[in-house]
Amino acid sequence: MNTTIAIDCMGGDYGPAVTVPATLAFLNTHPDAEAILVGREEELAPLVEGAQSRLRSRLHIHNATQVVEMDEPPTSIRAKRDSSMRVALHLVKNGQAQAAVSAGNTGALVMISRFALKTFPGVDRPAICFALPTIKGHTYVLDLGGNVDCTPEHLFEFGIMGSMLAAALDHNERPTVGLLNVGTEEIKGNELTKRASELLRVSSLNYHGYVEGDDIFRGTTDVVVCDGFAGNVALKTSEGLLKMLATFLRDEVRSGPLSMLMGLVAMPVLKRFKNRANPGHYNGAVLLGLRGGVVLKSHGSADTYAFEQALGRAADAVANNLIQRIQDRMETMMSTNGENA
Amino acid sequence: MNTTIAIDCMGGDYGPAVTVPATLAFLNTHPDAEAILVGREEELAPLVEGAQSRLRSRLHIHNATQVVEMDEPPTSIRAKRDSSMRVALHLVKNGQAQAAVSAGNTGALVMISRFALKTFPGVDRPAICFALPTIKGHTYVLDLGGNVDCTPEHLFEFGIMGSMLAAALDHNERPTVGLLNVGTEEIKGNELTKRASELLRVSSLNYHGYVEGDDIFRGTTDVVVCDGFAGNVALKTSEGLLKMLATFLRDEVRSGPLSMLMGLVAMPVLKRFKNRANPGHYNGAVLLGLRGGVVLKSHGSADTYAFEQALGRAADAVANNLIQRIQDRMETMMSTNGENA
Repeated sequence: MNTTIAIDCMGGDYGPAVTVPATLAFLNTHPDAEAILVGREEELAPLVEGAQSRLRSRLHIHNATQVVEMDEPPTSIRAKRDSSMRVALHLVKNGQAQAAVSAGNTGALVMISRFALKTFPGVDRPAICFALPTIKGHTYVLDLGGNVDCTPEHLFEFGIMGSMLAAALDHNERPTVGLLNVGTEEIKGNELTKRASELLRVSSLNYHGYVEGDDIFRGTTDVVVCDGFAGNVALKTSEGLLKMLATFLRDEVRSGPLSMLMGLVAMPVLKRFKNRANPGHYNGAVLLGLRGGVVLKSHGSADTYAFEQALGRAADAVANNLIQRIQDRMETMMSTNGENA
Repeated sequence: MNTTIAIDCMGGDYGPAVTVPATLAFLNTHPDAEAILVGREEELAPLVEGAQSRLRSRLHIHNATQVVEMDEPPTSIRAKRDSSMRVALHLVKNGQAQAAVSAGNTGALVMISRFALKTFPGVDRPAICFALPTIKGHTYVLDLGGNVDCTPEHLFEFGIMGSMLAAALDHNERPTVGLLNVGTEEIKGNELTKRASELLRVSSLNYHGYVEGDDIFRGTTDVVVCDGFAGNVALKTSEGLLKMLATFLRDEVRSGPLSMLMGLVAMPVLKRFKNRANPGHYNGAVLLGLRGGVVLKSHGSADTYAFEQALGRAADAVANNLIQRIQDRMETMMSTNGENA
């Protein structure tokens, strides 16, 4: 069966100008995939008119008249029954697609997907999981924002879901799991981390123990688990540091007597460097804990390349049975855990 | 009166090989300062023999036979009554010095200084405050590790102490204070941030409101307040990211056909860049909340330049009455806050 992705084409900073070309590029490299473009038909149709027929045949437009704005409050979002985001998620709910991808408002995506696609038993809100680049490759970090106040059981669930994501996307069947803490010694941490560590230790997951913030980029473990507050702080701080460094570097290249020459010579180095550290390459946070299908949140400012990566990641997750893997593992481990407790 | 600094010469990754030359450099640029080198006299004496007499006259050696190791457990640290760290802090306690500087074990420094120098009423453990570089200059962030479980009152106290530090070191009498959160909207955050925000809002501090992780390096506020868990995650994550980027950049410069030429030409740019982003320039975390004197924690791997910066920062804090400022402000605000509550 072809994998079908429903795309919220109106979301993100650039809307159809990015989402539609990215979808065409995605279909070009994924001959078994289909795409449903969701949004204002009159805006979407002209953008696909010129597409090659071999792509056009796997491309469908589903009209949705409303758009969820980036800073819209929850009550107003709920009232928009025909938003491109909600319609895309309902295509997954109804089985017309197996995954949805959106670059829109994160809070809205979490809220609507939670209602439309339901969560696994014991999971209150889907966790947001990013693959961050490391010296060795990448590390899956969750939760990055959805669950600000967590119980030890939540962190344990994140460990299961993150492991299943690494298994599905990287074919890594025994991914190592680290628990983010303020030190790696057994006595460090707060009540939450201590109790979560006990749950993870007795589980059948490949639990490494505590890790610290620098272990994320060092790639110490394949998965790093933390509450949504700490995860959001780690992610946003990293983004801020990268921006500051980029500003400093630009200033430095511009100043100095040989600046032009230096700039020209240094450019290819910096360009390759940027590609390697490029968060766009890892674009697409997975919403984990949803029963009804795969949901990917692209960065709002994603360009065509980055949005295409998010679509590819969604297709991979579907092809590798992410949802079924999580469901099976949650059932087994939750029952084992209950017996141990 | 001359400012006298007690220096734990045995602490840190390099011990006297860094701390003694750094002290000589510091005395050279601070003609009104005196220094007490604390540690094994037989190791310290040869290192200052060749010093100029104008420095030598402001330099004293205080013998201490034991050393706190970097990974030593608390019980063992308490038994070392003659450790260079403890002796340095007791020189401050006894009024022979106004500040102590150590590159040793952070946990030990917090524990010993808390017992020797006592905390202000209501302050359980000293907060660790770093100045992190920003696009505009620097931002004081606290707590960075000491207080893992915080009450709203703790965060409020951090706001007072961080403001007084900015006032003392930067002559910024109305520093802006941000509260670290997962979003800047009023409804975002957990119970802790919501209640702390209320305390800060009704205070006489220059409270900006919520900030996010990227605001630290953007320099949105002069002071950023957070619990020790989030602060530690932010700091360690940033360190990890910097190390990863340095590794990537080194690889990039080395690869490629013109790598040698590129390296040579790009080097001055990268060097100036490194100086600007150099955390060593901002070396020295201040332990805030101690009544008995100024305590600075240098990075364990500090080189001579970085350790000298920490000494200069300690001298500045003493010269600008940091402890008295905090005491005065704590008394005024705590009483006002009590009335408001």
